[in-house]
Amino acid sequence: MLSHGLNLEAPLTSKKSGCHQFYVEWQSPDSAHFHGVGKTVYSGKSPYQTIEIYQTLKFGKLLVLDGDPQSSEQDEDIYHEVLVHPALVTCSDPGAVLILGGGEGATLRETLRHKSVQKAVMVDIDELVVQVSKEFLPTYSSGCFDDPRSMLLIQDAKVFLEKTVEQFDCVISDLTEPYPDTPTQALLSEGFFRLIKSKMKPGGVFAMQASHSGRGMHHLHRSYVGMLKEIWKIVRPYHAFIPSFYSDWGFILCSDLLDPLKVSAEQVNGKVSSFSKNLRYYDGAIHQALFTLPKEFRS
Amino acid sequence: MLSHGLNLEAPLTSKKSGCHQFYVEWQSPDSAHFHGVGKTVYSGKSPYQTIEIYQTLKFGKLLVLDGDPQSSEQDEDIYHEVLVHPALVTCSDPGAVLILGGGEGATLRETLRHKSVQKAVMVDIDELVVQVSKEFLPTYSSGCFDDPRSMLLIQDAKVFLEKTVEQFDCVISDLTEPYPDTPTQALLSEGFFRLIKSKMKPGGVFAMQASHSGRGMHHLHRSYVGMLKEIWKIVRPYHAFIPSFYSDWGFILCSDLLDPLKVSAEQVNGKVSSFSKNLRYYDGAIHQALFTLPKEFRS
Amino acid sequence: MLSHGLNLEAPLTSKKSGCHQFYVEWQSPDSAHFHGVGKTVYSGKSPYQTIEIYQTLKFGKLLVLDGDPQSSEQDEDIYHEVLVHPALVTCSDPGAVLILGGGEGATLRETLRHKSVQKAVMVDIDELVVQVSKEFLPTYSSGCFDDPRSMLLIQDAKVFLEKTVEQFDCVISDLTEPYPDTPTQALLSEGFFRLIKSKMKPGGVFAMQASHSGRGMHHLHRSYVGMLKEIWKIVRPYHAFIPSFYSDWGFILCSDLLDPLKVSAEQVNGKVSSFSKNLRYYDGAIHQALFTLPKEFRS
Amino acid sequence: MLSHGLNLEAPLTSKKSGCHQFYVEWQSPDSAHFHGVGKTVYSGKSPYQTIEIYQTLKFGKLLVLDGDPQSSEQDEDIYHEVLVHPALVTCSDPGAVLILGGGEGATLRETLRHKSVQKAVMVDIDELVVQVSKEFLPTYSSGCFDDPRSMLLIQDAKVFLEKTVEQFDCVISDLTEPYPDTPTQALLSEGFFRLIKSKMKPGGVFAMQASHSGRGMHHLHRSYVGMLKEIWKIVRPYHAFIPSFYSDWGFILCSDLLDPLKVSAEQVNGKVSSFSKNLRYYDGAIHQALFTLPKEFRS
Repeated sequence: MLSHGLNLEAPLTSKKSGCHQFYVEWQSPDSAHFHGVGKTVYSGKSPYQTIEIYQTLKFGKLLVLDGDPQSSEQDEDIYHEVLVHPALVTCSDPGAVLILGGGEGATLRETLRHKSVQKAVMVDIDELVVQVSKEFLPTYSSGCFDDPRSMLLIQDAKVFLEKTVEQFDCVISDLTEPYPDTPTQALLSEGFFRLIKSKMKPGGVFAMQASHSGRGMHHLHRSYVGMLKEIWKIVRPYHAFIPSFYSDWGFILCSDLLDPLKVSAEQVNGKVSSFSKNLRYYDGAIHQALFTLPKEFRS
Repeated sequence: MLSHGLNLEAPLTSKKSGCHQFYVEWQSPDSAHFHGVGKTVYSGKSPYQTIEIYQTLKFGKLLVLDGDPQSSEQDEDIYHEVLVHPALVTCSDPGAVLILGGGEGATLRETLRHKSVQKAVMVDIDELVVQVSKEFLPTYSSGCFDDPRSMLLIQDAKVFLEKTVEQFDCVISDLTEPYPDTPTQALLSEGFFRLIKSKMKPGGVFAMQASHSGRGMHHLHRSYVGMLKEIWKIVRPYHAFIPSFYSDWGFILCSDLLDPLKVSAEQVNGKVSSFSKNLRYYDGAIHQALFTLPKEFRS
Repeated sequence: MLSHGLNLEAPLTSKKSGCHQFYVEWQSPDSAHFHGVGKTVYSGKSPYQTIEIYQTLKFGKLLVLDGDPQSSEQDEDIYHEVLVHPALVTCSDPGAVLILGGGEGATLRETLRHKSVQKAVMVDIDELVVQVSKEFLPTYSSGCFDDPRSMLLIQDAKVFLEKTVEQFDCVISDLTEPYPDTPTQALLSEGFFRLIKSKMKPGGVFAMQASHSGRGMHHLHRSYVGMLKEIWKIVRPYHAFIPSFYSDWGFILCSDLLDPLKVSAEQVNGKVSSFSKNLRYYDGAIHQALFTLPKEFRS
Repeated sequence: MLSHGLNLEAPLTSKKSGCHQFYVEWQSPDSAHFHGVGKTVYSGKSPYQTIEIYQTLKFGKLLVLDGDPQSSEQDEDIYHEVLVHPALVTCSDPGAVLILGGGEGATLRETLRHKSVQKAVMVDIDELVVQVSKEFLPTYSSGCFDDPRSMLLIQDAKVFLEKTVEQFDCVISDLTEPYPDTPTQALLSEGFFRLIKSKMKPGGVFAMQASHSGRGMHHLHRSYVGMLKEIWKIVRPYHAFIPSFYSDWGFILCSDLLDPLKVSAEQVNGKVSSFSKNLRYYDGAIHQALFTLPKEFRS
């Protein structure tokens, strides 16, 4: 109710209720998601990209690089479980794992859950992302950088791959989307994927995050699939819904020998049994479903 | 470039490029999707709800009731295939099918693909939604209202159920979300679901659209699941990503006798073989995956 | 209240209330106005520009060219009164008036209110804007195209000026903002203004709409002022708040002989007395105030 | 350009360019301004209201109380010069001035520029607004709280007025808009204005900020004018465009004896001559223009 005596045509609407601060994710010039924000937790700029962490009202803290959301507190486990475990479960007892990107530390965290892993090398170009994530998103890395099996290199992924003499059992690519003027734009090419393969043991398993997979948003994802089929014999696109991305996100698993479709639910459950209490999303039952695509995307 | 002689600090930005008309879907006061719109195709008001059809730039025409998106030209087939076929495939040779809601006509369209169906009764409260859909979204119903097996009743679903003496093999609920002040708010209750069951043959199959299913958006969906378990012996929540909803949408299939998990991929493919060329999303392979939930939502 | 039995953490928010269709005016990439829209009244594309008319909830119908708002039903009279009358009142008994642009017809309407005007030539490049305005915004032109004193030419303003042998008492420029890729981008230059002056009688009065005038938004406006001072002896920027522009809009009046500051309130009221009942904004009292700029913009 | 080998239908749009963080000011459910934001400078909650300071890209820091913008670094001087100087210039040599609200300190700053002022009492209910403004908006108060003539009281304005035995020459009301559930909702009534007058010397001058004044947004403003005419003999609404408000803002000056319309430009310039170098907006020339309303709002 308004003060008595004031005569208005329409009552004033309270501005108190409702959110009035938003992070806007433009998927394209004609499509955007508005994320209600409590405050900016961090805002900075590295030599490679802008880095922002928003306290969103719906998804907790949300890490944003160059305007593009990377992961949220509320569902980063879904993304990272799905990125890491299918590959490590398909591989038999992987010892040496390479992670490209993954600055938040959660890809490393999931990798180190596998007892067979003796060495997990993580190569990220942007030290500031790693520092900021450690400080503001501590549950993501959850101490895994201090695990004696982990080795963090601040380096360009391509430069590392060209120089290393290591041969990896598994490579996990957690690089950002190749938008114009971002660090990965020039990276994600057939030559780069061949370079990755050249540093893997025969029969090694490669997995990557691979953009939107849903109908009408799937062009980059399907393009990756086509490119990778030129390089590996077994190429399995898979997908999972990530709430904070508002999207059915695509991933791809590649190998010349090992096929995730041939790993049974029981085998999956056996392999993750020592840490299954820590997993909310992934297990043997969901493993097969992840790799089942809608009819139109099977070939 | 600007006219010579004009001296500006910053160049004027073109307003031509980029979309400047949007339909805004508020999921909550702190979360919205902005859909770029070419124009309003239709805007009206029935005694029950506001009805709008937008020509969106990303999803084609989008039907919106009381501000809430119902289906888009680009992916309505995903939604309607997933709503209808699991139930009709699980049922053995359904003859009489009841559709609640579904004003666009596409639920009826998918239902009539099944040759065993001899009678498809569709009950929708809002004649204007049906008329507007026929005129502006003709591919949705695709002539199915003229099929001699179909019968359209403009009536409240509850009133119809109370009066009918029919016993149905299958009931498909395609009712709108029960937002405050919408036609379905008072409808979707345990009493209503019991009423539905009372008009079904023993062992009949009920399927319903059942709201967002993704983590953090799943409260209404899980609430339905709990309620339906009081009524049916077999209750199977399932889900599919609908691009224009930006969500992993939930559905639920219920029966006292028949279990969709026991229908093999081969059986599914056999049952849809006569019209499988018309389906882009659903087949035997995806059938099982639809019913596989993330670990945290299995019980 | 929700259906009984449904157990939600938070109640569903009604989507019915509140507007969910918006025309978005981007002033710059970091500033926008969201105009609630009832429906798209017209949406089309001429050889020169996109043309849209929105039924806004706040300002009535709003004409938008190439994404930029031109005038609204609720306050077009403010804009057009302020654009036309100061010039025609400053001029003594103007007989021949030239209008550049002004496709809606309202600039012509205000011009024809002056009894001394014997010929009002309006030159607009875009016939479709004129047609669409006549049909959907009939109160703007209000029949003035049928006045025997008016002559409408569909032609490029520069081409017309180069060819005409006419000498005008007054010229009113109601051209759109010179955004990249719009019809006026190449037009609004010193050469163009000199061309205008060459077709005016000695002591004639030129007035133009001249973009935002408020602090921080005034760069184009001040650039016009500087340019025009090279051409005319008396150059008077003025301004009026236009609600649907959310801006203190700038205008400029030029002459070699006549100064609007020397026209008293009484003289203004005398000159508009025959039609002052039709004016809601302009009269003698406001005339002087329009030409009074904040201290920082006086020189 | 994308990585070679990737085959997309449409190129990826850079998300780097363009702002993606916004403070949204809802003027009404169908009208909003989107302010591009660099970061949240401060976000907190006092017992009275939410307090936020945004680093906007267009207006510098912007103070927002309960979702409503109060003033921006780029144009707070316009608002505060216009609120304070007309009243103090109209008053002859005011010695005791009372400021209601004005937590940022800029109203006090402008008041203290007048050498005649011997005592400036500022009463604001919310200490946190004062503290936050001192820390994050130091140019606003600019040291004025340390001026020996100023006295700050953290108190409800009404309680102060009821208790004080002081008689003021001038009262300046810089209270927030009376939105529902804000501190001023119950305050701004006829009784409150009469209480103010009871604490003023005969012939004292009262000035207040008084909401939007433009056509269609003027209801609260005109309602104040009507109410104040019941209390004071001379009531002069005036207005100035505030860029960061996107509005022609209304103010009202009241007295029983002194009329701002009778203060000449020369008298104004004389009275502000000692600090005119500090004023960018206000001087004798603009004084009269401020009080000139559009024809439709004169009565």
